[in-house]
Formats: sequence, C-alpha cells, structure tokens
Amino acid sequence: MNTEKIQAKLRRFAQERDWEQFHSPKNISMALMVEAAELLEHFQWLTQEASSELDTEKLSAVADEIADVQIYLCRLADVLNIDIKDAVERKMKSNEAKYPADKVRGKAKKYTEYR
Amino acid sequence: MNTEKIQAKLRRFAQERDWEQFHSPKNISMALMVEAAELLEHFQWLTQEASSELDTEKLSAVADEIADVQIYLCRLADVLNIDIKDAVERKMKSNEAKYPADKVRGKAKKYTEYR
Amino acid sequence: MNTEKIQAKLRRFAQERDWEQFHSPKNISMALMVEAAELLEHFQWLTQEASSELDTEKLSAVADEIADVQIYLCRLADVLNIDIKDAVERKMKSNEAKYPADKVRGKAKKYTEYR
Amino acid sequence: MNTEKIQAKLRRFAQERDWEQFHSPKNISMALMVEAAELLEHFQWLTQEASSELDTEKLSAVADEIADVQIYLCRLADVLNIDIKDAVERKMKSNEAKYPADKVRGKAKKYTEYR
Repeated sequence: MNTEKIQAKLRRFAQERDWEQFHSPKNISMALMVEAAELLEHFQWLTQEASSELDTEKLSAVADEIADVQIYLCRLADVLNIDIKDAVERKMKSNEAKYPADKVRGKAKKYTEYR
Repeated sequence: MNTEKIQAKLRRFAQERDWEQFHSPKNISMALMVEAAELLEHFQWLTQEASSELDTEKLSAVADEIADVQIYLCRLADVLNIDIKDAVERKMKSNEAKYPADKVRGKAKKYTEYR
Repeated sequence: MNTEKIQAKLRRFAQERDWEQFHSPKNISMALMVEAAELLEHFQWLTQEASSELDTEKLSAVADEIADVQIYLCRLADVLNIDIKDAVERKMKSNEAKYPADKVRGKAKKYTEYR
Repeated sequence: MNTEKIQAKLRRFAQERDWEQFHSPKNISMALMVEAAELLEHFQWLTQEASSELDTEKLSAVADEIADVQIYLCRLADVLNIDIKDAVERKMKSNEAKYPADKVRGKAKKYTEYR
C-alpha cells in the first residue's frame, strides 16, 4: 500500500473542497474514532466464532469501515508529518522485546497481564 | 508500506505466543478501538491549534498510538482476509462521487451535512 | 442517584480548579469516549462467559471506569443543559415502540437487524 | 434519576425479547462504546465554541445519544451487580484528593499532566 500516494490524494481531496480548515489533528482523531466504532459495531452482538464467519455482504461492509479507519489514519499521520511505516516498524520491534515468546508462550491466560 | 509483510510478521508474532486464540475479529476490533481512544486521548483537552503544534515528545507518543492502530488494522484485515489497499481505493473513489468538489466547495459550513 | 447533586459538585470541582475553560461539550465528549474505551479494555480479550465472572479486584477497576463514564455523562448533560432522566425516559419509550416484543421475541438471530 | 427503576425496566425489556443471551458485560461494553462514538460524532467537525451553541434539533439528537449511553451504562452495572451511585461517590472523592484545587488552580496549562 502506497501511503504517500494515498496521502497526496487525500490532501488534494481536502484542498479541492476547502475542507483543510476542519482537518486539525484533534478533529481527525475524532473522525478516526467514529469510524473505529462503526467497525466495532458490526461485531458487537456476535459471538467470537460468528465474527470469523461473516457473509459476503457483511464482509464488504466491514471492508468499507476498515478503509475509513485507514483513510483517517493516513490523513492524521500526514497532517502531523508522521511516517506510519517507520512508526509501525519501531512499534513492532518494541513489542518483540516487550512480550518475549518464551516467557509468554503457553501462558495464554496471563495474556492480559502482559499487555 | 508493505502491509502483506507486516501482516506476515504479526501472524508469526501471534503464533509464536499462542495468541491466535484471542485474535477473533470481534476481539481485534475492540483492541483497535482501545488504541484509537489512546490516540484520541492525546488531543482531548487541546485546542485545535495546539493539536497541530505538538512538541517532539508528544509527537513521538502520538506516532506510537498511530502505529498501534495500524498494527491492529492490518491484523484485523488479515484474519478477515480483506485487502486493505483495495478497500481504500474503492472507498476513495466512492468518496469522490459522494462529495463532488464543485457542489461542496465554499460551503464549508454545510460540511457535516454532506458527511 | 441524584444527578443534579452530582452535577453541582462537578461544576464546583471544575470552577475551583479553573477547568471550566476545558469543558466544552466537544472536549467532554472526547473524555467520555476515552473512559468508555478504558471500560471496554477490561473486556477486550475475555470470552463473553469470563466477562461475567470478574474477580473482586477486576470488578472494582470496572466500577471505577463506570463511574468515570457516569461522571463525564453528567458533566456533558450539565454544560448542554440536557435533563438525563427525561432523555432516558423518552428513549426507553421509543425503544419499546421500535422493538415490539412479540415481533422480535424468539428471533434472536435477527437481533442485529432490528437494532 | 432512579437507576434501580431504569435497570428493572431494562431487565424486563431484555427478558421479554429473549435478548439476555446477548447481554454479556463484554457485549454491553461494546454497545456502550458505539453509543459514545455516536455522541462524539455530533461534535467532531465543530469548533469548541460551536459545540456549546447547538440548535434545538441538534440538541435533541445529542440528548438521544446521551440517553443511549446512560441506558447501556445502567444495564452494564446491573449485569455486573455494580452500584453506580456508590462508584461515582467513591470516584469523586478520589478525584478531590488527586487534584487538590490549590495545587492545580491557575495552572490550567498543566491540566493534562495532572489528569
């Protein structure tokens, strides 16, 4: 996924509509949150099993919400001048160190405490 | 950003820790939501102006939360077998059609009603 | 629960700290959201069954988060001059009409579609 | 606000529809979150000033969302057997101790750090 290209498109999209005035990091973080909740909403009354067995229509609706979250995440990173790829790589390395496999493996019940 | 590579790493990360049992779409959507809220939290008491002028320390903390959201978004798409890139492209096209620039431009006050 | 009394206390609490300047409805809705996510976080990796069987320590932590949500909800209603009790009564009546028991009973699988 | 009475009504409401099976604390915390996001959504593109000056129609829509959050909060406390009033009182006392007025007053800029 070319995040720079997506961000350039989103920037132009906002400029063409004179919507940049609304795109403070504060506001975008709220919009992102609202989309994350719309994503969550699809799963709220489902069992965990059912949440893995969505039909085609539901799956497509969920994909749409995933896209919305991704779009606002790209936009937020852009207005803050944060490199998502770098941030993800740094975080994944830090998670490797934080949750050593041989320490937490087989201790699934303790999962929440390690997090 | 190579989402497939990130997803492969996250898959291995979960496998090595025997954490796949926790990674139902339902649960991951909750984790994503929690991270989106931690991102939001950085902005909750700031003015919109101040949200654009974060100092280095704050910016680094925000980047960490953006990474967390991105990581769970990649993981969720992976367990649901959804292609994020495709979903984003489809959504951006649909947004272009939904908010025609010449119709909404200069009508910034009506922004919320178009959304 | 005497919401007027709670609201009066919260008003004084904010005044004494000169924090009213931060308490715009926008900001309070964000704070409420953050607390709702902290509440959600306790349940994110639990099975539905386990979420009903919290130990005393966890239950107390959850009660704290419920309190935080309630506090910001009272505060938000106060700054907007909305009567929570009236709003709840109105909403419950509307829900009775929206989901007639004899129409949705025994159709549990259709629950999400009725909502 | 008589939370016990509201909770009794909600209990009956769920029973009459055979919806108790969906009302695990985990699921209710998700539903509460979704409502909190719908509440937030009303404010996402507004300035802080505008968020204090909602017109009647908007105010009524916001009151509806506040009611939804309150309803799920009552329901969650009920299924977990938590007394909201007690929890709120305990939390407000703890907040008094945590943020001593004479220490944080006039240091509004430090607000976020005290929180």
